[in-house]
Amino acid sequence: MALFHVRMDVHIPLDLDPDVRAETVAREKAYSQQLQRAGKWPQIWRIVGQYSNFSIFDVESADELHEILFNLPLFPYMDIEVTPLTRHGSDVKD
Amino acid sequence: MALFHVRMDVHIPLDLDPDVRAETVAREKAYSQQLQRAGKWPQIWRIVGQYSNFSIFDVESADELHEILFNLPLFPYMDIEVTPLTRHGSDVKD
Amino acid sequence: MALFHVRMDVHIPLDLDPDVRAETVAREKAYSQQLQRAGKWPQIWRIVGQYSNFSIFDVESADELHEILFNLPLFPYMDIEVTPLTRHGSDVKD
Amino acid sequence: MALFHVRMDVHIPLDLDPDVRAETVAREKAYSQQLQRAGKWPQIWRIVGQYSNFSIFDVESADELHEILFNLPLFPYMDIEVTPLTRHGSDVKD
Amino acid sequence: MALFHVRMDVHIPLDLDPDVRAETVAREKAYSQQLQRAGKWPQIWRIVGQYSNFSIFDVESADELHEILFNLPLFPYMDIEVTPLTRHGSDVKD
Amino acid sequence: MALFHVRMDVHIPLDLDPDVRAETVAREKAYSQQLQRAGKWPQIWRIVGQYSNFSIFDVESADELHEILFNLPLFPYMDIEVTPLTRHGSDVKD
Amino acid sequence: MALFHVRMDVHIPLDLDPDVRAETVAREKAYSQQLQRAGKWPQIWRIVGQYSNFSIFDVESADELHEILFNLPLFPYMDIEVTPLTRHGSDVKD
Amino acid sequence: MALFHVRMDVHIPLDLDPDVRAETVAREKAYSQQLQRAGKWPQIWRIVGQYSNFSIFDVESADELHEILFNLPLFPYMDIEVTPLTRHGSDVKD
Amino acid sequence: MALFHVRMDVHIPLDLDPDVRAETVAREKAYSQQLQRAGKWPQIWRIVGQYSNFSIFDVESADELHEILFNLPLFPYMDIEVTPLTRHGSDVKD
Amino acid sequence: MALFHVRMDVHIPLDLDPDVRAETVAREKAYSQQLQRAGKWPQIWRIVGQYSNFSIFDVESADELHEILFNLPLFPYMDIEVTPLTRHGSDVKD
Repeated sequence: MALFHVRMDVHIPLDLDPDVRAETVAREKAYSQQLQRAGKWPQIWRIVGQYSNFSIFDVESADELHEILFNLPLFPYMDIEVTPLTRHGSDVKD
Repeated sequence: MALFHVRMDVHIPLDLDPDVRAETVAREKAYSQQLQRAGKWPQIWRIVGQYSNFSIFDVESADELHEILFNLPLFPYMDIEVTPLTRHGSDVKD
Repeated sequence: MALFHVRMDVHIPLDLDPDVRAETVAREKAYSQQLQRAGKWPQIWRIVGQYSNFSIFDVESADELHEILFNLPLFPYMDIEVTPLTRHGSDVKD
Repeated sequence: MALFHVRMDVHIPLDLDPDVRAETVAREKAYSQQLQRAGKWPQIWRIVGQYSNFSIFDVESADELHEILFNLPLFPYMDIEVTPLTRHGSDVKD
Repeated sequence: MALFHVRMDVHIPLDLDPDVRAETVAREKAYSQQLQRAGKWPQIWRIVGQYSNFSIFDVESADELHEILFNLPLFPYMDIEVTPLTRHGSDVKD
Repeated sequence: MALFHVRMDVHIPLDLDPDVRAETVAREKAYSQQLQRAGKWPQIWRIVGQYSNFSIFDVESADELHEILFNLPLFPYMDIEVTPLTRHGSDVKD
Repeated sequence: MALFHVRMDVHIPLDLDPDVRAETVAREKAYSQQLQRAGKWPQIWRIVGQYSNFSIFDVESADELHEILFNLPLFPYMDIEVTPLTRHGSDVKD
Repeated sequence: MALFHVRMDVHIPLDLDPDVRAETVAREKAYSQQLQRAGKWPQIWRIVGQYSNFSIFDVESADELHEILFNLPLFPYMDIEVTPLTRHGSDVKD
Repeated sequence: MALFHVRMDVHIPLDLDPDVRAETVAREKAYSQQLQRAGKWPQIWRIVGQYSNFSIFDVESADELHEILFNLPLFPYMDIEVTPLTRHGSDVKD
Repeated sequence: MALFHVRMDVHIPLDLDPDVRAETVAREKAYSQQLQRAGKWPQIWRIVGQYSNFSIFDVESADELHEILFNLPLFPYMDIEVTPLTRHGSDVKD
């Protein structure tokens, strides 16, 4: 398994059609929740005051992560930063 | 309760006495594990290739977080970046 | 209670309809003043020469701050930077 | 009167003599509190997780502010950023 | 009196109507020259190769400077950076 | 398998004992060549004019990469930047 | 021969005609694969979570590299960073 | 004649011998005042809260400016940024 | 005489009319070549992989350089960085 | 042949033995002049107000450039930035 820290910053164009916007945001939510329930996307937090999140992904490989991210409905409007993680030596969880 | 994302980058001086270094690192580990077990520091990950971690803190207040961070044995050697978090609207955990 | 320092930089698009602009700026002012009077937004200063402000928020939680900021009428046109604060050891105010 | 927003980041050298350090920090505190009581330095907040503060100064002039800052006992160890402020058009305080 | 160093970088949109552009630039020039003659804007230099200037303002207060800058005809197209100044200890002018 | 792009910038202190320096650099070379021969570190290039390299690592996991990097003899003197890679859709190698 | 490390970040405008986009991306792929098969572009990797690649070019000269890059069908939409490489002293490949 | 805008940031090492420091600062002041009186260095301002200045130099050539700056007693401790200036089209001084 | 190092980065909007683009680029080339032949612009190099150049200008004054740069046909689409030069003490050319 | 633009910024430690410093600077000058006379280093300019130079190298390959730079007597004290160049389409020199 491979663990990644991801920051996503969303910049939807101000002139995007409101219906397209609403529909895309709804698809993003459904897509995210499906991956959360599948255990691939175990953590997501909103950054206060930003249209941004910090997320943790727990996937088979970097290849799987790339597929997941490239298929985000909001991907065309996002800046994404990926950081690979490993177990910390002080972590009390085994 | 208040949730924070913290990045810590450790820069121990190369000429620090090895015994002081070892003792400080050991105290840091014990301090961190005590807070993890108390539920204040629920997540800690090593950033691959860096003497750095991403952590999540779940504390009473920003005041409590400040006390915790200022008392880290490695605090004098750290760059610390704190980001306040809130629940994400897509989070499936209630 | 939770104290936050917030910097807001406003970038209204040059081609925004002037009536929409004026109406949005007026709603922003009313919204801000209501929160100031409620004690949630105790300080706001203009940065000289910038369409920007430094503000202090005094709220129940980061969650409440996020709600407040996301509902700013000018939010879609703002860059926002949030910094959590705590009491300074030299502060003469108890 | 002139209003300024100041950020101070303190970097005391790790090898500074502990007595000199303690004595300098104590003088800094006394100096700051004297100016707070005189109304020159009405606000000071600790930035969470940082040896840093945000402060507001309310002085006769930039010349007076410069004198105050240059005489901070910790000045040789500080990075200081000064931003001039003016009244915000939405401020409910007159 | 209060002395400020200001850098202005002008970014007029490429598709601005040429007449509007010419008229705005002409108003900017008249406005600047009126303030120069009034002694408020004693120095202005062009930065070589840039649509930018360095200026010195000599005003009653930061509040007056803000009024002056916000009313620049080119203000909507400018990035402005303000630095408060004080007398230098080596200055031979008394 | 997991593929990573790594940039290493080496900053050996100017006052490091020349024998320690020579011995550490020699150990670094042996360590790197052993990993290259094992297929873990398939590519390494010198950046022209820099004491730096770009490398490709082909490892079991991010955990293995972290072990490898933390044990580099020059690790205490390095800035390391890790980027996870995946197959490019235009790559002719299958 | 001359070896270069190249990073390409692709920013196709969101409002580009979908047919033009698809046709340009297809031409980019064919162009890249022709150069890969000719040995000029021996390595290409996708950066995880980014519309970006790291590539290695093995060409006659910087002049040839410039011709190759300027003729990329996606060149008008790319940020490109070129770094000249040389053999690393620890490289086990002769 | 050639006009230059120069920013100087002074970073005297904390462990410099106090007598050397005082003597160097005194020589800097005398050197600066001699050039001011000669008309080569017509303006110098202190940046509030910084050990820094903005200066204007009015010299024969960039070569003369370089000689002047390289011979500043504090040159070894300074970061210096030089910007060439020309007459601004709105300047009322002819 | 005055010597300057100039970097020009060209960003022609993607939607500029192709005829206007071609005509402007042609005028830029003619303008540059006329100045090269006059000895004012003795060196120009393309930066590999970039729509950018490094140039050397050898002019009467910064004022003349500013006139030259402001009249570049591509000036509205350029970022320009100007650095004043002087003779290097190791230069073998007298 | 291969053409490179190189920027060198020199940071000699303030506490370097003056004789070592003088001897190293003298060797640097001799080394540079030998390469200039050999046609490998055809241009070198001092950046005004900086202990820095812009240089042009005209060498067989990036490998040769790397050898030249790594053997600069001041290399341990330098930040070096290398940019590959190619002929500009507007260059009147054939």
